[in-house]
Amino acid sequence: MISSLQNPRVKQLVKLREKSSERQKQGLFIIEGHGEIALACEAGVVFREIFYCAEIADPALLTRFDPHLLQEVTLPVFEKIAYREHSGGIIGLAEYHPLGLRELRLSANPFLIILEAVEKPGNLGAILRTADAAKADAVIICDPKTDLGNPNVIRSSLGCVFSTQVVAASSDETLDFLKEKKIKSYAAALTAVNYYHETDLTAACAIVMGTESTGLTEKWLREADDQIKIPMRGRIDSLNVSTSCAIIVFEAMRQRGF
Amino acid sequence: MISSLQNPRVKQLVKLREKSSERQKQGLFIIEGHGEIALACEAGVVFREIFYCAEIADPALLTRFDPHLLQEVTLPVFEKIAYREHSGGIIGLAEYHPLGLRELRLSANPFLIILEAVEKPGNLGAILRTADAAKADAVIICDPKTDLGNPNVIRSSLGCVFSTQVVAASSDETLDFLKEKKIKSYAAALTAVNYYHETDLTAACAIVMGTESTGLTEKWLREADDQIKIPMRGRIDSLNVSTSCAIIVFEAMRQRGF
Repeated sequence: MISSLQNPRVKQLVKLREKSSERQKQGLFIIEGHGEIALACEAGVVFREIFYCAEIADPALLTRFDPHLLQEVTLPVFEKIAYREHSGGIIGLAEYHPLGLRELRLSANPFLIILEAVEKPGNLGAILRTADAAKADAVIICDPKTDLGNPNVIRSSLGCVFSTQVVAASSDETLDFLKEKKIKSYAAALTAVNYYHETDLTAACAIVMGTESTGLTEKWLREADDQIKIPMRGRIDSLNVSTSCAIIVFEAMRQRGF
Repeated sequence: MISSLQNPRVKQLVKLREKSSERQKQGLFIIEGHGEIALACEAGVVFREIFYCAEIADPALLTRFDPHLLQEVTLPVFEKIAYREHSGGIIGLAEYHPLGLRELRLSANPFLIILEAVEKPGNLGAILRTADAAKADAVIICDPKTDLGNPNVIRSSLGCVFSTQVVAASSDETLDFLKEKKIKSYAAALTAVNYYHETDLTAACAIVMGTESTGLTEKWLREADDQIKIPMRGRIDSLNVSTSCAIIVFEAMRQRGF
C-alpha cells in the first residue's frame, strides 16, 4: 500500500495528469472513473497498473483486472493523484498509443467528423459524446491544441474518447486521406450557400468544424468539397461548436436512417 | 472619473456581479461586452449607468447612450468591476425586470424550450444561443438554480438571454400555462418509446429537457403529453444537455420549414 504523498510513483502520476509533454515522453497516461475505465477496457487499452483506494472503490470493478496490476493507496494519496472528486476510487495507468490515419477502420459508407483545432476540452468532450451516440466512423482532430490523454477531455467525453476512433493528424494528411478514400468533405461555414438540411449527406462524407473563436481556416474553406451552413434566424451569427456539430451529425444520421 | 478601488459604487458593482441575492435586492444587474450590451439595448433593457474605460472602449458604442448615463473609470477600476478580460471597456448597470409567464408574447404556432433546472451556466448559455438561432418563441426555466443576471449566463449566451424571451417559473405554473395555451409538451427522456425525428413537431409544442445529472423529474415525465428520445447507437446513454436540445430543436425547425 502506498501511503506517502512523496512516493515517486505518486509524483509520476501527478505529472502525467498535468503535463501533455510528460505523457508524450513516458508514453503513458492516466484514466479516472468507473465508466471511463470500463470503456477503455472494451477498447483494448493496455493498463500497466491500477491504483485504488479501498475505502471508495467498487470491488466488482477491481476483479476485471489481473491482480498483479492492482496497487492499493491511502485516501490522501488517492486524492493527490485524482483529477476530480467522485472518481470512484480507481485510477488506471495506461499505455498511450495514439491512433494514426492509416490505422482507422472505416465502414462501407463512412461518416467522419473533422475538427480543426477545437480549443476547449469541454467542447471536444461533447463532440466525442455526439460521435459515440451517432456511431460516426471516427473523429479526426487536425493540428490539435491538446492531446487525447488530457484528463479533462477524457472526463468531458465520459470516456467516448475510447469508444470512438479518434485520430490526430495534420490538415494536409487529412485532406490526402479523404481524397484517397473518396470521402466528400463539407465545411461548416457561415459563408456557405447551401443549408445542411438541404444537402445529401447519405454518401461517404465528412463534416468539418472550425474553432470556437475564428471558424475554419482558409485552407479548409478552400479545400473542402463543399460548404454547408445552419440557418441562423435570430440575432447572433454562430452557435456553440459542439451544438452546431450535433445538429449536422444527427441530420446526417436521420437521412441515413440511423 | 472614478479612480478609487474603494469607491462605494465600485463595490456595489462587484457585489451585483457576484451575488444573485444582491441582484434581487437592488433590482439591478450588470452587462459586460459590446455584443451583449447591443442585444440588451435592442431588447429594451433600461440602463441606469454606463461605466467605461476610455483606454479600451469603442467610442462609437458610447454614442448610443444618453451622455448623462456615461461614467468614466480608470483601467484598474474597470478591471476590478469586470467579470472577464476583453470585455471591450464597457459595463452597463441595468434594471432587472425578470419576465413572467403572463408577459410572454407567443407566435401563432409557438415552439418553446422548457429547461428543468439546468445546472451549468455554460449549458444554459449554449441553449439560449440555440433558441436565438432557431427563433424559438421562448425559453422557460423551471425552478432555476441561477438567475438570469448571472454574468456567466449572459456571457456564455453571447447576450441571447436578451434576444430570446426567457422566463423563470415553477413547474406547476408552467404546466398550467401549457394547458391553457394548448401547447403540447414533449419530455426528452431515455425511457421514451418514440424517437424525436419520427414525432410530428409542427404544431404548437414545447420540448422539455432535464438536468445534466439526473434528467427530468418524475413530475415532468408524468405530466408531459408525450416523451421523445434521441437514438443512442454507441456505448454511452446520454448526450450533453445542450447538444440534445439543439438536435431536437433543429429537427422541429426542419419539419416546420425553418
